Order: sequence, then C-alpha cells, then structure tokens
Amino acid sequence: MDAQAIRAALPRWRQELHAHAEEGWTEFWTTAYVAATLQELGLSPRVGAEALDRTARMGLPSPQRLAAARRRARSEGADETLLHRMGDCTGAVVDIGPREAPVVLALRFDMDALPLPESHAPEHAPAAGGYASRHAGRCHACGHDAHTALGLGLAALLLSGAPLRRRIRLLFQPAEEEVRGAAAMLELVRGIPRFLAVHIGLGLPTGTLATGASGLMASTKFDAVFSGRAAHAAKAPQQGRDALKGAAAALLGLHDLPRYGDGENRIHVGDLHGGGARNVVADKAVLRGETRAVTCEMADDLFARARDVLEGAAAMYGLGCRITVVGQAPAAASDADLAARLATLARSLRTEQDRPLFAQVQETANMGASDDAAVFMRAVQAGGGKAAYAILGSDLKAGHHAPNFDLDESCLWPGLLWLEAVCRDCAAQDDCLDA
Amino acid sequence: MDAQAIRAALPRWRQELHAHAEEGWTEFWTTAYVAATLQELGLSPRVGAEALDRTARMGLPSPQRLAAARRRARSEGADETLLHRMGDCTGAVVDIGPREAPVVLALRFDMDALPLPESHAPEHAPAAGGYASRHAGRCHACGHDAHTALGLGLAALLLSGAPLRRRIRLLFQPAEEEVRGAAAMLELVRGIPRFLAVHIGLGLPTGTLATGASGLMASTKFDAVFSGRAAHAAKAPQQGRDALKGAAAALLGLHDLPRYGDGENRIHVGDLHGGGARNVVADKAVLRGETRAVTCEMADDLFARARDVLEGAAAMYGLGCRITVVGQAPAAASDADLAARLATLARSLRTEQDRPLFAQVQETANMGASDDAAVFMRAVQAGGGKAAYAILGSDLKAGHHAPNFDLDESCLWPGLLWLEAVCRDCAAQDDCLDA
Amino acid sequence: MDAQAIRAALPRWRQELHAHAEEGWTEFWTTAYVAATLQELGLSPRVGAEALDRTARMGLPSPQRLAAARRRARSEGADETLLHRMGDCTGAVVDIGPREAPVVLALRFDMDALPLPESHAPEHAPAAGGYASRHAGRCHACGHDAHTALGLGLAALLLSGAPLRRRIRLLFQPAEEEVRGAAAMLELVRGIPRFLAVHIGLGLPTGTLATGASGLMASTKFDAVFSGRAAHAAKAPQQGRDALKGAAAALLGLHDLPRYGDGENRIHVGDLHGGGARNVVADKAVLRGETRAVTCEMADDLFARARDVLEGAAAMYGLGCRITVVGQAPAAASDADLAARLATLARSLRTEQDRPLFAQVQETANMGASDDAAVFMRAVQAGGGKAAYAILGSDLKAGHHAPNFDLDESCLWPGLLWLEAVCRDCAAQDDCLDA
Amino acid sequence: MDAQAIRAALPRWRQELHAHAEEGWTEFWTTAYVAATLQELGLSPRVGAEALDRTARMGLPSPQRLAAARRRARSEGADETLLHRMGDCTGAVVDIGPREAPVVLALRFDMDALPLPESHAPEHAPAAGGYASRHAGRCHACGHDAHTALGLGLAALLLSGAPLRRRIRLLFQPAEEEVRGAAAMLELVRGIPRFLAVHIGLGLPTGTLATGASGLMASTKFDAVFSGRAAHAAKAPQQGRDALKGAAAALLGLHDLPRYGDGENRIHVGDLHGGGARNVVADKAVLRGETRAVTCEMADDLFARARDVLEGAAAMYGLGCRITVVGQAPAAASDADLAARLATLARSLRTEQDRPLFAQVQETANMGASDDAAVFMRAVQAGGGKAAYAILGSDLKAGHHAPNFDLDESCLWPGLLWLEAVCRDCAAQDDCLDA
Repeated sequence: MDAQAIRAALPRWRQELHAHAEEGWTEFWTTAYVAATLQELGLSPRVGAEALDRTARMGLPSPQRLAAARRRARSEGADETLLHRMGDCTGAVVDIGPREAPVVLALRFDMDALPLPESHAPEHAPAAGGYASRHAGRCHACGHDAHTALGLGLAALLLSGAPLRRRIRLLFQPAEEEVRGAAAMLELVRGIPRFLAVHIGLGLPTGTLATGASGLMASTKFDAVFSGRAAHAAKAPQQGRDALKGAAAALLGLHDLPRYGDGENRIHVGDLHGGGARNVVADKAVLRGETRAVTCEMADDLFARARDVLEGAAAMYGLGCRITVVGQAPAAASDADLAARLATLARSLRTEQDRPLFAQVQETANMGASDDAAVFMRAVQAGGGKAAYAILGSDLKAGHHAPNFDLDESCLWPGLLWLEAVCRDCAAQDDCLDA
Repeated sequence: MDAQAIRAALPRWRQELHAHAEEGWTEFWTTAYVAATLQELGLSPRVGAEALDRTARMGLPSPQRLAAARRRARSEGADETLLHRMGDCTGAVVDIGPREAPVVLALRFDMDALPLPESHAPEHAPAAGGYASRHAGRCHACGHDAHTALGLGLAALLLSGAPLRRRIRLLFQPAEEEVRGAAAMLELVRGIPRFLAVHIGLGLPTGTLATGASGLMASTKFDAVFSGRAAHAAKAPQQGRDALKGAAAALLGLHDLPRYGDGENRIHVGDLHGGGARNVVADKAVLRGETRAVTCEMADDLFARARDVLEGAAAMYGLGCRITVVGQAPAAASDADLAARLATLARSLRTEQDRPLFAQVQETANMGASDDAAVFMRAVQAGGGKAAYAILGSDLKAGHHAPNFDLDESCLWPGLLWLEAVCRDCAAQDDCLDA
Repeated sequence: MDAQAIRAALPRWRQELHAHAEEGWTEFWTTAYVAATLQELGLSPRVGAEALDRTARMGLPSPQRLAAARRRARSEGADETLLHRMGDCTGAVVDIGPREAPVVLALRFDMDALPLPESHAPEHAPAAGGYASRHAGRCHACGHDAHTALGLGLAALLLSGAPLRRRIRLLFQPAEEEVRGAAAMLELVRGIPRFLAVHIGLGLPTGTLATGASGLMASTKFDAVFSGRAAHAAKAPQQGRDALKGAAAALLGLHDLPRYGDGENRIHVGDLHGGGARNVVADKAVLRGETRAVTCEMADDLFARARDVLEGAAAMYGLGCRITVVGQAPAAASDADLAARLATLARSLRTEQDRPLFAQVQETANMGASDDAAVFMRAVQAGGGKAAYAILGSDLKAGHHAPNFDLDESCLWPGLLWLEAVCRDCAAQDDCLDA
Repeated sequence: MDAQAIRAALPRWRQELHAHAEEGWTEFWTTAYVAATLQELGLSPRVGAEALDRTARMGLPSPQRLAAARRRARSEGADETLLHRMGDCTGAVVDIGPREAPVVLALRFDMDALPLPESHAPEHAPAAGGYASRHAGRCHACGHDAHTALGLGLAALLLSGAPLRRRIRLLFQPAEEEVRGAAAMLELVRGIPRFLAVHIGLGLPTGTLATGASGLMASTKFDAVFSGRAAHAAKAPQQGRDALKGAAAALLGLHDLPRYGDGENRIHVGDLHGGGARNVVADKAVLRGETRAVTCEMADDLFARARDVLEGAAAMYGLGCRITVVGQAPAAASDADLAARLATLARSLRTEQDRPLFAQVQETANMGASDDAAVFMRAVQAGGGKAAYAILGSDLKAGHHAPNFDLDESCLWPGLLWLEAVCRDCAAQDDCLDA
C-alpha cells in the first residue's frame, strides 16, 4: 500500500473496528481482523496465547462469555485459522524490521471497547454513517478503534518506505479498560529501550500533540460480592441478611472517602447489581468499583481504605464480603528527554502545503486518568529504558465514555506520520541500543 | 378418578408444577397443564384472555419475555390448542355444577413462582427427588405449586362424588407474587356470595388449620428508575450525574422509614440494578420495592413517604426519578361468621381411623404478609358477601421465599377433604344465595 | 388534709412539679418537694442514698451536672436538710401503715422530665397558666409530674381515712426516661406480693381506665462514641478520620435494621452531636440511641445487630467505637387475675352523683412502649407475686414527648380514688400475704 | 523598642495571644491587647466599629455570645476604654507613616482562633509552657497568634527605624476562619496599590519563604438547619419527622459529590448537632459545612450541587431545610511580578553572621486551602493594584487544625525582618503610587 492508500484506509479500518466493538478479553473479531490485515501486508503476527501469558490475564470474563464471544466472531466472519491459533486468548503482536536486529521501540495500541450502549441519535456520526456498534451494550466510546487503526496504518507505512535497520514492535493489547490487559503482555517489552503509547483526545483539540503526558493515575479495579441470606420480606425479614443494604452503604461510603491534600484521586462505583425477587431479602449483591491516585503510595492508602469501607459496610448488616482485584496499574510519567525528542520530531514535520503538521506541539500534559500502558512504561523505565505517553489531540463530540462519544478522524493521518517518523528515528539511532 | 387416585395424584401434580416454575404472567406451561387436566376430568375451563381482562394485568413483563415464556412452554410440551386460546395471557377459570345454577362460592388457587434460584443441596427434597425447577432463576418457594395441585384435586373430588346443586368456581390465578394478578380476574367474583382462598404454611404446622386469617397487609409494589448522565469517571466525573448514588441513598432511606405505633408495616427493596462499565458514571439505576401496612390508610401514608424518599434521593444527585406502581392489594380480613362455619366443618371431619382430621382448628390467625386474594375478598365483601382466607398448616424446611423452601406434602390430602366439604356445604345451603 | 383539700391540691402539686422539670437523676428539687410534702403529712420518707442503691444507677450524668442540678435546687428553695440527706442521689420511698405489718403492695410513681424544650405557644396551657418549665431545655412532656402528684395525693388520702391494717409502699422513682432508675430501687420491692404502676394517657381518653396493660417493650438505651482523628479539612483531609461520617452511616443503618415478622420492635437515635470547627475533620461524634422489642429474645437479637451496625460503620471510616449501655428494661405483661380484680374495683366506684367513676374500664391494653416499671414487675412476678401496669386515660393535646404535650387534669381525681380503693382492698386481704 | 527588645517580645506576644484564644468575632481581649500594644508604641489604632463595617460581618455569633465574650475579656483585664470604643465589634487597623502621605501598602494579620479543644499532652509545648488556651474548646491551631504577633512586631520595627516616606496600613482582621471577616474590612484596602498577607507553615519548613502563593481556593461556608417534628419514638414514631435522618443523609451525600476532572475541590462537614432526648424524634438538626474549589466557577457549581444534596435529603424525610451562607471567599492568586520583587528582597537579606536569612526563597507555592485574604487580593487587583500571599515556612508539630498543632517560633524573626524590608521598599518607591 502506498501512502495515499493508507490514508484512505485509516477511517475505513477504524469504522470497521468501531462496528465490531468487543469488550476486554473478548476481542476475537478484532484480533483476527488486525492479524489478517497484517498478514495481507506480509507480516507474521503472533496472536492470542502465542504472544500473551494467558495466566496473567486479569479480570477475565467467564469461560462461557469467552466462548460466546468467539462464536460471535466466527459468525461475523473472523478467520478460522486465526481463531484456532488464538485459542481462548485475544491480543496480537508483530515485529517490523530485520529478524536478527534488536527491537528498539515498542508501541502499544489498545483494542477493547466499553460495556456501554452506543447512542442511536441521528446526530451521532457512527449511527448516521451506519457503523455504530453491532453489539448491543458495547461500544467504542474511548477511541481504541482509532488506536488500533493507527497501529495498522503504522505497519503499512513502515513497510511502504525504506527498510528499517532495527526492529519495531507493535503491541495490539486487549482489555485496556479496567487496566487488565498489559500484565499479560509484559514479557513483550522486557529489555526494549524505548516505549511509546498514544491516546487520542483526552481534552486536547485536533491539531495539538502532547508527546510526554504525565499524571497517569495508579488504579485498582475491584469487584466486591456481598453475601447475605434470603428470607420472606414480610413474614420473616429478620431471618434475612440484606446484601443490598451493605452494597448501598458501601457505595455511598466509597465515594465519601477523602480528597487528599497532596494530589488528586478518584473513587468510583460504575456497576451495582443485587437481589432478584421484590419480596425476598437479597442474598447477594455485586459492586464493581475502582480507585485511582496520582502516586502509588496514595493509591495503596486509598485502596486500603476502600477495603475498610467494603468490609465495614458488610459487617454493619451481618454480611460476608469477598473483594477481588480484577485490574491494576501503577502511576506513571513520561521521560522528559524522550518527550523532548519526540516533540522535536513532531515540530519538524510539515504538510504537503509546507505548513507545520501540528498547530501545537507540547512536551507535557496531564493525563488525568489511568492506562495500563503504565505497566509497560514502568517496566521499560525499570530496565533503564525510556517511555512516553503521547496524546494526539482530537475534537470530541462528547467526553470519553459517554454514549455519544465521537472523535475527529482528521487527527489520525498527522498522528500516523509522526509515529512513522518516531519509528524511523529510533530505528536509525545507535543510542537506543545502549539506553 | 376416585378418591384414592386423587390422593395419589396430588403429590405428582404438585411436583410436575414445581419442576415447571414460571414467574407471574408467564405461567403458559402451568395454565396449559391445569386446563388439560381439567379437560381430562370432563370440564371446560376458560383460559387466558377468555377469562381475564388482559388490560387489567399489572406489572406485566415485556412482550419479548412473554413470547419467550410461551415458546418455552411449547418446547416443554404445552398443548398447542390451549396455548393458541390463551394468546399472550395466562390464567384459567372453571365452574363445577349445573350451568343454570348460580355460582355460590369462588375459590382462588394461585399458580406463579418466584424469580429466585432453587437450592441444589442434596438435602433439598425437590433436588433429591429430581423435580427441582428446570427453569434457571425461577422456583416455587412459596407453595403455589401445592395450591394449584389442591385446585386440581378439588375439581376431581367434586366430580367424583354426588353432583352439586349449585355452582362452584375455581380461579387459577397468575401473578400473585407482587399482588399483580387478581385485578385482571376481578369480574369473575362479582356477585358471588362466598369467597375462599387457602395458603399452605405461613408458620402453622402440619395438622393445623386456620379458617379465617386476618392481617392481610395492604401492599404497593413499585419500580423506581433513576436517570442520570454518563461521563468518564476519572477525566470528568463532574459532567456525570450518578444514578447509582441516588438509588443507594433511596434504598437506605426507604428502609429508614418509621415503624408506626398503630400497627405493623413493611418496606423492602428486593432488587437493584444500575450502571454498567466500571469507569463510567452510571446513567441509570432501577430499584424494585414494596410497602405493606395493616390498614389501607397506613399503606397510603407509607407509600407517599416512600415517594418522598425516592424523589428526594434523586434530587440530591441531580437525577430524574420515574416511579411506577406495578402491583397493589388492599388490606383484608376474613369474615368471622364464615370463618366460624368453616371451622365447624373442619372439626367435624374425621380420618378413616376415626380421629379428627385436623389436630388443631382455629378460626383466626395473623397472616402477616400480603396476598391479592384481598382484592377478591374486598370485592365480595363490598357486594354483601362473605370472604375467608384460610391457612393450611404445613411443616416447612425453610421459610417462604428461601431458596430451600419445602413443604410437607402430607398436609394436602386433609386440606383437600376440607375444601370438598366446604364446597358441598355451600352448594347445599340456601342462605348463600341471599348473603 | 381532707378529700376536698386533696382534690384541690392535686393540680397545684402537679403544676409546681411541672414548673420544676428535672431530668433523670437530677430530680433534687422534685425529691425534696415530695419528701417535704410527705413530712407535712406526718410521714417519714427515706430519700436518696437512704433508699436507693447509688451504685446501681444507670446512665448517670457527670458529677458536675449532678452538682449543678443540686445547686439549682437549693437556689430554688429545696429544703437544705433533705438535700443533705439525699447526697448526690435523688428518689424517695415512703411506707404507710403499721410499722410492724408486712408491706403488701408497692406502687411506683416516676418523677423525671425530658431533655426537651417546652412549647411557649399561647395555646399551651402550662405557658398560658404560668407554670411552664423554668428549666431551659427540660420539660414534663410525658406526664410524670401528674404521676408524682398522684403519689402525693394517694399518701394524703390513705392518711385521711381509716388506718390501714397492712403496709403500702410508695416508690418515687427517678430516671424512668431511658429506663435507668428502677434497677437502683429493686431491693425495695423484694418479697412484696403485689406491685402496681400507673401511667396517664398513652392513647386512652379521659374516663377510661385499663388495669392490666401488656406489651411493655424490652428496651436497651445505648450511647455510642465514635472517635477519629482531627485534620485540616482542605490541606490534609486524608490525615483525618471523620467521626461524623461513621455516626451518620450508623444512624441510617440502625433505622435500616429489619422489622421482625414475629412482633414489633423499635429502633431510634434521638441525639447526635459531633465535630466542632467547620473546617476541621471531626475527631469525635456521640450518638444516643435505643432499641425496643416485644420479647426479651428479640430485644437481645436486635441489640446485637445494632452493635454490628455501630461497629461496622466505625470500621468503614477507620474509627474507634465505644458502646455503653446506659439503660435497660425487660419486656413485661400484667398478671391477668390481678388486672381483673383491679378492674372489678374500678367498676364498683361511683361518683357523688352516683354515676360510674369511669366511663370505660378494660382489663387489658397494649402499652406499646417501654417503662422500667417492668424491672419491678418482673422481680415481683419472679418472687411469686402479681404485678399490673395500669393506664389512666387522659385526653392529650399532643402526643407524649412532643413539646406541646399536655394532659387533662380532670383524669387525676378519679384515678386517685381508684388507687385508694386498690390500696385499701389490698391492705384488707389476707391472700396478699401468701401470694 | 529596639530590635533586640522586639525580637525578645515576639514569642511573648504570641504566647499571650495563644493563651487567650478567641473565636471569630469574639476577639475582644485580642483586639484590646493589640490596640493597647500599638498605643504603647505611640500609634493611634482604630478599633471595632471605628474601622469595620459592622453590617458586613458574616457568620456573626448571637448577641448573647458576643456579650459573653466581651464580659470575659473584661474579666481578663482588657482595657475598658478600648472595649467601650469597640462596641460589639472586634478588629483593629493602624497606619504608620506621615498622615498626609498616601497609603502604599496594606498588610493583613488575622487574629481569630478555632473552636477546637487544645491538647493537654505534656509533649505539647503550649501545655508544657503554661500558655495553652485558657478558653475551653478554643485554641490557636492555625497560627493566627503568630500572625498577630508579627503585626505587632512589624509596627514596632517600622517605628524603631528611619521614618517612612509613605504610609503602611496594618489590618488586624477578625474571623478569618470560615472566611467571614474580610468583607467587613474591604473599604480599608480600597485604592491601595499593594497588598500582602502572610501565613506561617502550610507545609513549608522553617527557613523557607514563598512570596507569591497561588491556589487560594474559593470557599463557601454554610449552615443547614433541618426542621422536622418531634414525637414519641415508640408510641408514635410515624407522627414525627426525623431531622437527624435528613442531616445524616445530607452529610454522606455532600461528601459523595464528585471530584472534578479540571481541578481540585473540597467538601466538608465539620459539625453536626441534632435532637436531644433519646426517645423523642429529633425535630431539629444543624449541619455546618463548606465547599472549596480552585476556581470561582467550579465553586459555584459545587455549591449549587451541595444545595441540591441538602434540599433533596430534607425532602426524603419530609423535613424543612434552611441554608445560610455564613462565610465566602473567592479564589485568588498572587501577582507574579510582585511576588518576584518580594522574593528578590528576601534573597537580599542576610543574618548577622552574613548568611542568607532564608535557606530557600521561592516565588510560588500552592496554598491548597482558603483564606479571605483573597477578598482583599481580588479587590486590590480589581483596582489595578498588585497583591501577594506569602507563606513563611515553619516546622510544625502537627498539621493545621489539629489539637496538638504547634509552630516553630524561630521562623518569626526572619519573617519579620523581611516584612520590614518589604514595607520600607514599598514606602520608598514611586511606582507604588501609579500601580
């Protein structure tokens, strides 16, 4: 594919991915689509258990749900051979460049969607354009469809130009939402001297690029199961132990945990399900929550307090409480020198009309949320390497995670050109090897 | 069928019904089973929309769920013709006695199960006996399977003996749970001078019969839908309006409503579902609750306060709140003179060994819960007739509405003999006509 | 004093007592007033520590508050000698009848007021009549002023008539509110064969007398102190542990405890104080609550659950929680045969116009609250004696414990005549001795 | 006084002020002490209503409490003439320099203490040193005693040196806590081209000076009074409307308000009082809270939501809710150029040993709390002037607003030398006049 073809393919890829929104660890169709596209480019991606540590997957859905998602992918045309190679595990990785050369840079592209119904409003472009999610209750409301498309575009662009002297690794990561997926791909960045992740939007407008975001918040995702005892709500309520009361008190109590004077944090419960029959004391309630903090120390303190809230609320009503951590990411910050170099590259790029490719390039930004790219960043930094988290500005129709979230696709092509430049720069440098 | 055959059939009918537990308004298999059995006895039951006012059904599930239940009934062998006659409406009614004679007594038998998973423990007789509910998440944990079996047995017994001089009407009611069904069968008791409902268990042991329970609590069943606004839980929580916070505050607040000094009441929330994605502010939460009180006045006051709680909790967090009443029954009490006559009859009955059929017969008992038999009782009483609510004692393995609820089937045969005696007594009296 | 003088004195006594409303264990003025009045009648009451077990006083205020109340009583003219005899302990007891004769009946009159500001509305008779409480934040909103006046009147009436053959004991009890006082007077009923307490109002109208109320609820009064850690609410809220959050969650959680299917209960928090400076995390909060139940078993279960709520709520927010029981009374019921005899006596009494003294005499009534008369009743019953709790109907302007509570004084004289008849009947019977 | 005497007087003044801790608007002793000391220096301070707009005082205590505080000040030796001049209003202002010259700089020193009991632990220096607060429940746990001592020292130092060419104004402000006092002194800064406030501690260690803090959070202080209806908690709880339930739900709900993604905020309830008698439904509860935010827009949004919580919680339980704003301050930031000049001055100062007076001078710092110095800053900035908020580092034994808060007095003398230098610099400049 030449550049023009790639530029034309970008929105098509993104819209195809958008229409097949798959939640974390169920990205069977998406993985197959990515791998098939890479194969068409002549690459040899590894998929599923070939690339990931299956046992390190966090927050895994039930085998039933995995199997159902796999069946759906097949019914939607996913390549049988690829599905077979994947097994029950999603995700893909591909290296570009000479097999014998060292890998000098790993880039992360996340692929999963959210358990959120997509807007059907006519002013919502995916709805109007016919590529809204086909999967009820699931949609790409965070932009991972665009990230994945960027990954495909980058592979194509690197292959379309001069051969690379050193290897570049593209990680197509499952289950970024709830920071569950990176741990299973951790081995794939071990010893690599440079790491880069890119996220679209996050409050920056189209035309802006931030090459070294910081403030990736440490986050712990947890499920709490309150278990009580059923009883007739009128004849003998006293024989029951009401799991819903414990869950409700915990929900309010979690949000009541303090702001900290030494930096921001977040606490959230996004899902609560409990009970069943109206006239029966609920014997079970499940609450799904998360804590976040700007430092790992604060995150530890906050999650310890969240445990107190959950267990105390259970004790109030004579309930059991089982808390399971289903996702976890550390706090992370970009390396300033890497961010500076990435910014210099970005500033050097110009459009065909010889105007700056980006209206605004900045070396820092506050991420203000969590991403398990932090798992990779920390690992690379711990190994003496450098890591950066870039934000590719994109005008948004609605905030991330809103049902009518939509991005500005015009941000993608400049972003892709910059990513290519980064890869070529890194593959050309010697210092990458001894970072 | 002769008496011995009927006695033998009683547990078989009950266990068949138990195995096919169907929730309110989805009793397609049950209705067909009842109607087919009555037809085999030579009777001509009316089913579904032939007998009920479809538009007066309260708390109706979605058309999708009704259709799915109907399909399941067909797949489980329900009679096609009967299903066709039923349409989308469950329930049956049959009259026994001369067509031209007046109906002097209506008896109510309720048929629905609870949205509760049944115990699989080996010590749970239905599990051990292979007749536990085949329907996941649904079970007969209140005894309506036994009630329906009693209705079938009563029809058989009345037909097996001397012909009746006047007509007896048997109502096989759907959706008693959540007091949703009686309103749709109200016309079927209009002008009938006597009404009797019977419930097994309720705290009385096997061998005891209470012929005139009082304290049927008025009850209102309601759904409350809290609607907020979704937002990213870390990037912009302030743009959200969290429906789960409103629902949790309402749940605690509802249970906080006062005990009353002038009689008992109940408040309960048996089900709460809200949110979806862990890291998204929940834009919707649904709470299903009920209020009960020993008088209609108290019930009105209590439900008005429940509304205040729901709407106030929504206002706290900037949410909308839509409250729907999905079931309603008044308070009711048995008529003392009818209860006395029913008790006299019960005391006169003896076993084959010439011992009293019941170890203990009492004219009153406190029902302590709700039953939309109260709708029928109030209607008959308002028309100048007499109504009674009987409790047929049965040793229980666990309380009503517990997953391991189980009754003592040996209570059924004596209960049935008494019901037959009641019918024959009533059909023989002249005073029934001018009550 | 003759009967007319006593009749005239009744409202005067009651109003004087009303004006000097004193909370439990601070009834120094009241005790002195009672004792002085009894001394004027020629009796020799024992006061304070002469009569009570000081160490068995429950829910005692601080020594500072006791001393302040004593000083106030002195400043309001309480007899110095009596105050000296009392020490720091309120309460009085007096026997009427031959010193050598056995005590055949004990009657309890409670003396304490509530920590509630009295209404100043012009339509409130004590305000209009100039005898509203002089003590800010304290008032007789339950009728104990009337009870104490009845006790004085009974002493006077018994002395004005024929000498008694056996002894009658009048207990003037402190601290009935919060059921704290009876335990300290328990020895005074030991071995006495008959016990009677009388309470005005409680829902019965003037002219009605119930001689044997039941349903005295067991009650536990408790204080819970939540202790946290202070911190600057903006600079370092995370360093604090907010005692108010724990107290608020506990308050809602306590009221959330279930109604019981086997009888009524009550849970209440009447007072909550915590924190101090608006911008400081509260390091302390105190909650004062109570549980009640119709049986002692239910009361134990309910209070155990209340402990769970308190301790669980404290654990939620990293707080300490110290729970202190400050008052306790068992459930109790009147003896039916004693109640019957008391009713027969009441029915036999007639006015000067030869009409029945009471328009309605009933042997039973549901008390529906708690009274530590139950402590005496249980003790007398455990010793083989008989006990009754009578309700002397009185039209009320507002419910008990409302700031504008007011009773109908016209109920007092008939009540007093009945009490005299009861004493004379009991003192004349031989069977009292071997009850 | 010469410099050595002033240096010696500083801790003495501070400790005297510390021992007489007075809450906002009750600083009668403190004002008299300040004014008397200034008079001894030969100055003519204005006090109370001479200087302040009495009608603009926010969050004023009751006249009874003001009168009681005034009586206490008199009993503790406050000057009678000064008390007379003050009337019921605290606060003082004094100008130093030629009467005819313009005022070129206003400095604010706040004087009030907190409603917090001081630690009596032996390791707490004020306790060990015998200068702990004599006023139960009130203490200087924020450092305003040191601020006031700095104000006195500054006056003395300016008088001890060369005469000033232009006037300097010292504001001794009441009621800074809860940001209630500045509004009443607003006229005193009108048209003045420079404003400076200084606060000790706030996380900076002794030896550090920050000359231009930002991040003063906008804050609204509010009282919410929930009004219900009293009733007997056992006999007729349904007749009550429980103010404590509303207050408890509101307390939890306020803290549940969201973190904002675009900057920090704070919500706090520091005080809750309600009810009275344990067995009476509480008819009143008072909650004292505050909201803070880094921008005025966020503050408005947050307080609007707080109103929703309060009013919604009241509606839940059928209560009234009256919300009163008792203190308010905007967000503010220091002017960078002024901060730079102040820092240059600080860096130029040297000790007698010719070492830098401050180990560390920084031009910015995050204040992270609220101060109604912001009211003055905004007013001066709106008039075209420049304002700065300085933080004088001080090692603290415990955080601000903790009962064992204590500062390091050694920070005071260097701070004072810097303040003198600032005043002399400003009084010498011409550009102050046309700022």
